[in-house]
Amino acid sequence: MNPVAHIVDQDDPRIAPYRAIRERDLVGREGRFIAEGKVVLNVLFNSRRFEVESVLILEQRLVGMQQTLATAPVDMPVYVATQSVLDAIAGFHIHRGILALGRKRPAEDANALLSGLPDQALVVALVGISNHDNVGAIFRNAAAFNADAVLLDASSCDPLYRKAIRVSVGAVLQVPYAVLPTHQDISKTLAEHDFRQLALSPSGKDDIGALAAARRNALYLGTEGEGLPPLLMDQMQTVRIPMSESFDSLNVAAASAIALHRLWHGA
Amino acid sequence: MNPVAHIVDQDDPRIAPYRAIRERDLVGREGRFIAEGKVVLNVLFNSRRFEVESVLILEQRLVGMQQTLATAPVDMPVYVATQSVLDAIAGFHIHRGILALGRKRPAEDANALLSGLPDQALVVALVGISNHDNVGAIFRNAAAFNADAVLLDASSCDPLYRKAIRVSVGAVLQVPYAVLPTHQDISKTLAEHDFRQLALSPSGKDDIGALAAARRNALYLGTEGEGLPPLLMDQMQTVRIPMSESFDSLNVAAASAIALHRLWHGA
Repeated sequence: MNPVAHIVDQDDPRIAPYRAIRERDLVGREGRFIAEGKVVLNVLFNSRRFEVESVLILEQRLVGMQQTLATAPVDMPVYVATQSVLDAIAGFHIHRGILALGRKRPAEDANALLSGLPDQALVVALVGISNHDNVGAIFRNAAAFNADAVLLDASSCDPLYRKAIRVSVGAVLQVPYAVLPTHQDISKTLAEHDFRQLALSPSGKDDIGALAAARRNALYLGTEGEGLPPLLMDQMQTVRIPMSESFDSLNVAAASAIALHRLWHGA
Repeated sequence: MNPVAHIVDQDDPRIAPYRAIRERDLVGREGRFIAEGKVVLNVLFNSRRFEVESVLILEQRLVGMQQTLATAPVDMPVYVATQSVLDAIAGFHIHRGILALGRKRPAEDANALLSGLPDQALVVALVGISNHDNVGAIFRNAAAFNADAVLLDASSCDPLYRKAIRVSVGAVLQVPYAVLPTHQDISKTLAEHDFRQLALSPSGKDDIGALAAARRNALYLGTEGEGLPPLLMDQMQTVRIPMSESFDSLNVAAASAIALHRLWHGA
């Protein structure tokens, strides 16, 4: 049974990391992040790549959380508060009433990550995807289709942003990922590990549905506005999702769902 | 050239319909809606199913909007304002600086809508999808894969909510739709028009990727939590998207992208 402490003062130092969490996303967080909701907490407690420092929940949620908390480290503190104290701490209304403070273990090296993958593997490469919702949604799709890893360039958003975690329904805590400085670094690393590298773009050459099978696939996704850098497109096989010519294009998360479904090796 | 009027007072009666637009979504709007951004306005001006009553834009955007405004009805008023007046009118920061007031023409009858469809057709049926982002995203996917119509039950959210329009990038103004009271009404109408009706669900029986071709397909989508009603699932062919067993499920919009891509008849 975890130690439970009632928090009655929003300035209690024990819950300082939960204060003003919207703003906190914007500053250095030293590997710490806020996870929300029961489903995400279940993923977090079962992840070996992340630690949980504490949880902060609405007092009336404590009973319903017992099963989830049973999988938490035994000495992890559980803080409970009333809705008004909780909202005052967070800086906005915490609808679900369930928060956790996680911490990333030392960052994974992309090379080590790829070295540990099975012979048949699927990797997603994100270039310049700065929208939190899109990064979260792409991770969710990656988890649904068993992607083995996600590589991000430094201009993509941190998957541990609160909103990215929430939209991913915890998938950012489940699918291993690594950040590399540029897309050139990503493509060099993938080449060393013998991946077929596919750049997805509305102007791509080959129909994603008509590709020959390959043992190891890496799917590159870029921003909706500018797309993938022309230099990157020139260097690799480009693929497209055929669609109506009368409509602009798919959202990048929707496009990733279709492409990953096509590249999935099956259960 | 459209008449241009400078608005200097946030209480100017001419721009009353733009006031507090966040709250306005929640009350009776008499078929009126707010569209945001240049891309959406382009769709709106080219739609025969909607009228535009006026636009309200940031003064420095006027020049860049000339090409878009050239397609507007000639007598439609163009209101311009400074950023601070615009924000005061809307009740929050209008980042893109481009708003339009649209109005729905008399609601389309589902039966009439389906009667006008070609022999080969694709329809999307939404049951209980109350999330604005999901409705918007599904319409965007429907447009990308040339769906001919969307039918919604009355418990699904109005596609003309501001956020649904924005997320759809205007697709809700492009793909014809009709609202019916219940899913029973939807399925009765589709049956009369000779549609193969497919219920998409994680527990569906047939792999969506292995379906025999059909001339007319209707794809049912339900909420993420509860899914489609059991009664509906019992009455029709159920389909699923095979995915990892270790992950919860896809977001309904992502699932719609994959399914519509599979059901698309091509350009």
